[in-house]
Amino acid sequence: MTNSTIKIALAGLGTVGSAVFKLLQEMSPVISNRTGKLMEIIAVSARDRSRDRGLSLEKVVWYEDAVEMAKDSGADIVVELIGGSDGIAFDVCDATLSNGKDFVTANKALLAHHGLYFTKKAEEACLSIGYEAAVAGAIPVIKALREGLSSNNILSVYGILNGTCNFILSRMRESKCDFDTALTDAKKLGYAEEDPSFDIDGVDAAHKLTILTSVAFGCVPNFDDVKIEGIRHISDLDISFAEELGYRIKLLGIARKNGKSVEQVVYPCMIKFGSPMAHVEGVNNAIAIKGSASGPVIIEGQGAGADPTASAVLADIIDLSRGIRPPILGVSAENLIFNEDENAEIKTGRYYVRLMVLDRSGVFAEVASALKDENISMESILQRTRAPGETVSVVMTTHEVEVHSMKRVLRRLSEIDSVVEIPRAIRIEPLTF
Amino acid sequence: MTNSTIKIALAGLGTVGSAVFKLLQEMSPVISNRTGKLMEIIAVSARDRSRDRGLSLEKVVWYEDAVEMAKDSGADIVVELIGGSDGIAFDVCDATLSNGKDFVTANKALLAHHGLYFTKKAEEACLSIGYEAAVAGAIPVIKALREGLSSNNILSVYGILNGTCNFILSRMRESKCDFDTALTDAKKLGYAEEDPSFDIDGVDAAHKLTILTSVAFGCVPNFDDVKIEGIRHISDLDISFAEELGYRIKLLGIARKNGKSVEQVVYPCMIKFGSPMAHVEGVNNAIAIKGSASGPVIIEGQGAGADPTASAVLADIIDLSRGIRPPILGVSAENLIFNEDENAEIKTGRYYVRLMVLDRSGVFAEVASALKDENISMESILQRTRAPGETVSVVMTTHEVEVHSMKRVLRRLSEIDSVVEIPRAIRIEPLTF
Repeated sequence: MTNSTIKIALAGLGTVGSAVFKLLQEMSPVISNRTGKLMEIIAVSARDRSRDRGLSLEKVVWYEDAVEMAKDSGADIVVELIGGSDGIAFDVCDATLSNGKDFVTANKALLAHHGLYFTKKAEEACLSIGYEAAVAGAIPVIKALREGLSSNNILSVYGILNGTCNFILSRMRESKCDFDTALTDAKKLGYAEEDPSFDIDGVDAAHKLTILTSVAFGCVPNFDDVKIEGIRHISDLDISFAEELGYRIKLLGIARKNGKSVEQVVYPCMIKFGSPMAHVEGVNNAIAIKGSASGPVIIEGQGAGADPTASAVLADIIDLSRGIRPPILGVSAENLIFNEDENAEIKTGRYYVRLMVLDRSGVFAEVASALKDENISMESILQRTRAPGETVSVVMTTHEVEVHSMKRVLRRLSEIDSVVEIPRAIRIEPLTF
Repeated sequence: MTNSTIKIALAGLGTVGSAVFKLLQEMSPVISNRTGKLMEIIAVSARDRSRDRGLSLEKVVWYEDAVEMAKDSGADIVVELIGGSDGIAFDVCDATLSNGKDFVTANKALLAHHGLYFTKKAEEACLSIGYEAAVAGAIPVIKALREGLSSNNILSVYGILNGTCNFILSRMRESKCDFDTALTDAKKLGYAEEDPSFDIDGVDAAHKLTILTSVAFGCVPNFDDVKIEGIRHISDLDISFAEELGYRIKLLGIARKNGKSVEQVVYPCMIKFGSPMAHVEGVNNAIAIKGSASGPVIIEGQGAGADPTASAVLADIIDLSRGIRPPILGVSAENLIFNEDENAEIKTGRYYVRLMVLDRSGVFAEVASALKDENISMESILQRTRAPGETVSVVMTTHEVEVHSMKRVLRRLSEIDSVVEIPRAIRIEPLTF
């Protein structure tokens, strides 16, 4: 059966690129058994040729310029593991498709920002773009959505899409430490970058959600449609109150049908202990998909790391070698619809609210009156003193309320003299399996 | 883009067949958007033509004989939803492939028993067999294994593969009822058939495991390789002791590499509360796959029911219409290996053992001496009296012990005069995510 060779060019030899290189070599006999094809890396491109990566690079052509490699190397597939929505990654993808080669990437930013452009370009040239590795590492969620659940109208997709944030939130809970300590630990363990803002500000999760939304709902990937809130402001107090109330705080990416639109949000929220995402701890990712016929399907696994990402990259290459070429985003690019963003936001929700107040007479009356004026109905209230002489934390959970009323009430609460910090509100998401 | 029609013939119009019929009609515009093809059911076959199924059957040709339909209807794809490893289902599959049509089925028994024969036959004719619906309903686990994780050596696959058993075990725990009561409840709710033996004796789970093992490890599907134990003997006592010890009892199907062989077992076992399967309750299914590069991936969802099964059947049809035709069992049939069954069994394990003893002096000494002779080292021991004057239940958990020593000790314990029931042993599976 082994009758032809798939030639691969690899742009980027960082940890993921090196892992792809090694995995391809190690799995070569198994892959040829599974595909009837030989796989050969014929060219690589990376910044520093002298660096020892533990790879045998003798037989491959080294390119200083990844774009040149995409044009001239004679590869069937160009794999881009450089990253970034623009710059070299953009140019490599563009050159790859212009030169009639298939493209495989782990680059979520590239597709979240330029998904429509590249998908159109690939389809016009009858080429494919593999991007399973761009969302949730080893978890084959793109395949599950685009192929495994292709017979469904998708009602919602949500998930823990960023391992760094999930690690930090888990760590804060388990070690009862504050955000900065947990972030430092994450850096020490290699789970957070020196500049962690893309992760902790929710941008990385939003890139992934943009792609998931497109595949799930057949809409043009549009990063700007995602409302984003990161986890910097989550305090150890919130974590411990959540625990007391029977919740876990998770940074979720959520895309859900709201009439004709799709709401896309990334924010930290409280989910009931026992709900399907609550037990997902550390750097793991998990995604729940609700299909009209399938019901809910939930997938959990390693969302980052060199080997899990390489697993997905290589699976995409194997798909191409087997002739598996579904529509890149689930429908052809010309059939993608634009999301009607302005109506997308869901108008009601439940909230956790934490106030830090000076325990003076009359303060609770002021708080209660503000809530009453905005028709905010409370489900529970907790009060705890930090230490003698300090301010008191007052925690409330609400019933279903109007989002805009909530925003107004938070503004009003922050104006009360005895409220000494900005009130913190965290959505309570009633996620059921 | 809509430029051709996929003609479908449907054998079997029970609950699943009817659901496929309805889903295809309902999703027709969406599917044509996703595939560029029109789908049309041109023929059906079922036993009773007069029965009202709520389907508009005017435009389809009715066949009394499903085999004749497979031969003569002019369909591109024949969908078999009759069930059973032999008889009509076998003949329909055979006729479909003999007549150059693709075959889609939810029939686990057929492939567990005749997987090699039909896969060879299909491949020789360049045809495909879609069987995602045969394993775990809506959960796209075949696709995850065969395509999403195709870049991995699979180390183990295990899961809750039978919703009926999982419902019964959940019910026994939640309602503190015995096995028979839970089974009666399952029947009332439509989760168990009038003759429930295929489910509760583990046969259905073993059919599914046979298929999973083949796809995961590239071996010939061989039902006889699976060691099977059902859940009839699980008592409410075991359920409540498990709870006390921090475990849940689940019927698992497990396939794992053991040297060159693959151990395949279906049995009720104890898994630590907090481990990835422990929270899967009711009729849900879940499968954990451990890949060499991906690490563990776990998928949970509805493993049975008309709509979830129809979701998977229709996804297979959509795959075919998109030209997605991976090797049926992950490698071509000629590359499938035979599992070296005799060496497959894993030789050690941990156990929960429950004895019912008359509380006479000397009985514990006899038990302890039997354990000592076989080098069975205990981890914990619990004792509880059922009611005054009744026998005492003695529960032990062991450390890692030899399986054959365990078998010998159980025989010896059963021979002790004061041990009044057959000793019950349940494996403790150290499943970690």
